[in-house]
Amino acid sequence: MSQATYTVQGMTCGHCVSSVTEEVEQIEGVRAVDVDLATGKVTVTSDRDLDVDEVRAAVTEAGYQLAS
Amino acid sequence: MSQATYTVQGMTCGHCVSSVTEEVEQIEGVRAVDVDLATGKVTVTSDRDLDVDEVRAAVTEAGYQLAS
Repeated sequence: MSQATYTVQGMTCGHCVSSVTEEVEQIEGVRAVDVDLATGKVTVTSDRDLDVDEVRAAVTEAGYQLAS
Repeated sequence: MSQATYTVQGMTCGHCVSSVTEEVEQIEGVRAVDVDLATGKVTVTSDRDLDVDEVRAAVTEAGYQLAS
């Protein structure tokens, strides 16, 4: 099991959290997504190491930005 | 046709706008709902005069507050 934390910019409410969670959950191998709205920290637990570009694509698809 | 403008507190993003719009549109007689996210102003066009309590209930149902 692998775990990594990313920072997402632009989330302002619970709907934003849901959108990001839903998109990131769709990445193959992802088992859990935990979002802290106040800090923008998104912790992803997965059964393989994720490529940051996969996470970035999911976050972009949700309408937000991964902090560089 | 009747038109009135209300101020809604707590909307922070387009999802919030959608939530409020959807709930207010469900009030009987409502024909159009226009939300300005920056100001929180919600303009409602309806084919009858609305009771402010109906609007307040819809906004609350969406998870936001009507400014008093």
